[in-house]
Amino acid sequence: MPRRIESFSNETVKRVRALHDKRARREAGLFLAEGLRVCAEAADAERWPRVLLVAEDAADHPLAARLIAGVEAAGSDAAITTRAILAKVAGKDNAAGMVGAYAIPPTPLAAIDRNAASMWVVCEGLKDPGNLGTILRTCDATGAGGVILLDQSCDPFSVEAVRASMGAVFTCALAQAGGAEFFDWLRGGPGMLAGTFLGPGTVDYQAVRYEAPTFVFMGNEQSGLPTDYAAKCDVLVRIPMAGKADSLNVAVATGVLLYEVVNQRRAKVTKVT
Amino acid sequence: MPRRIESFSNETVKRVRALHDKRARREAGLFLAEGLRVCAEAADAERWPRVLLVAEDAADHPLAARLIAGVEAAGSDAAITTRAILAKVAGKDNAAGMVGAYAIPPTPLAAIDRNAASMWVVCEGLKDPGNLGTILRTCDATGAGGVILLDQSCDPFSVEAVRASMGAVFTCALAQAGGAEFFDWLRGGPGMLAGTFLGPGTVDYQAVRYEAPTFVFMGNEQSGLPTDYAAKCDVLVRIPMAGKADSLNVAVATGVLLYEVVNQRRAKVTKVT
Repeated sequence: MPRRIESFSNETVKRVRALHDKRARREAGLFLAEGLRVCAEAADAERWPRVLLVAEDAADHPLAARLIAGVEAAGSDAAITTRAILAKVAGKDNAAGMVGAYAIPPTPLAAIDRNAASMWVVCEGLKDPGNLGTILRTCDATGAGGVILLDQSCDPFSVEAVRASMGAVFTCALAQAGGAEFFDWLRGGPGMLAGTFLGPGTVDYQAVRYEAPTFVFMGNEQSGLPTDYAAKCDVLVRIPMAGKADSLNVAVATGVLLYEVVNQRRAKVTKVT
Repeated sequence: MPRRIESFSNETVKRVRALHDKRARREAGLFLAEGLRVCAEAADAERWPRVLLVAEDAADHPLAARLIAGVEAAGSDAAITTRAILAKVAGKDNAAGMVGAYAIPPTPLAAIDRNAASMWVVCEGLKDPGNLGTILRTCDATGAGGVILLDQSCDPFSVEAVRASMGAVFTCALAQAGGAEFFDWLRGGPGMLAGTFLGPGTVDYQAVRYEAPTFVFMGNEQSGLPTDYAAKCDVLVRIPMAGKADSLNVAVATGVLLYEVVNQRRAKVTKVT
């Protein structure tokens, strides 16, 4: 039977709540994931939280019961608490019936098996955790292997990134590396590096035959890919733009590119209208 | 010459800062846009702020000088202020050198000229202002006319939506309507309503010949299109999903769909690799 937590000043509550802060995450080696659906997806990927807090009115849900049993079987900590305490832990406007504190996995480039998927996303200096989470979610939807983060990028284990990933943080691979380290690793095996670039030398993104494994290379939100990184790509692509602003959100651009790769590789779709 | 504002308690500063709040926006009939680039894009669209606050170190930038002159010529209020005051007005982490308070335009459906563009986005019950702003930005990039918001959607003039739109709030059309009102309007003229649907009866999104004007119809972030709205569509489409979570962020899905329509209508791209 899980214990009950009734107090806002409970040590577990304070410890889990602190995981909104990057430094606390690093010190604890834990990150926060919210919601029954996301925690269930983590369990499907055989990832169990070190601490699981479940709202009293959600504890009888079959998925919640399964999660509580799994957490206890793993020797970890499951507790039932009030909606008010859970809201305080999860942050405002969040009606999640559960939060879990999960171990932050190591993210070395060496752990990426490039042949495990036919496409990957590489992001340079990505700043917005919502964009990163959304890109992970798109990787999951398209069958891309995951995301390789280069240089100073945002924290993939922040609450915002995990929330936007809708569980994909548990199903997709994630690596962090410096630029030089990445290019060394990339050229040590097969792979087509296709960079999206705002400068000269690009071709239309539909003019490229994307060879597997394709590494779709996205630049920073403000400045795009740096010129020296662009020079290392096998091909530089542009997505046609009609508008005044001439730019797409980086997660949208990633989605458009990944679906182009998917569409090239699947059977041609016959028009029905 | 613009006046100078040196005090945090200045009435103009307080009035502009209040526009972060929806009720204050409604009462004042004004919304906030930040950044030189966005304000310059507004000026290109002949939209001038009622109040323009410019950081003292940004005032000599040619674009800023042009904006100040334009605002003063329009009989509106331009003021130079400190970075610290501007940061307080714009919100944390925002290094924008300028903020403008713009009149909230009316958003009746009747003002939409459907033949002014060959595609449009319709969103039902969209909740996240970042998603809405990102969709507006994608409309600008793809040449879509703009967004029609149905039922209870988020405020398109919130700071988050305007920020994510990267200026597209000034270049794209925007309408707000109830569902019944929209369907009446839609069927009063030409238009193919293509809904993205998670239920049965869908075809692959590439199996459809999108006829102009195409209305791409997106559902709410959590629940997708309601069944009764789906029943009113000319065609229901699905984007193929490979993953566990089986879902895309709504702004990413909108981008993938709009680019499919764009690609069907432009000259076929020859492969160069």
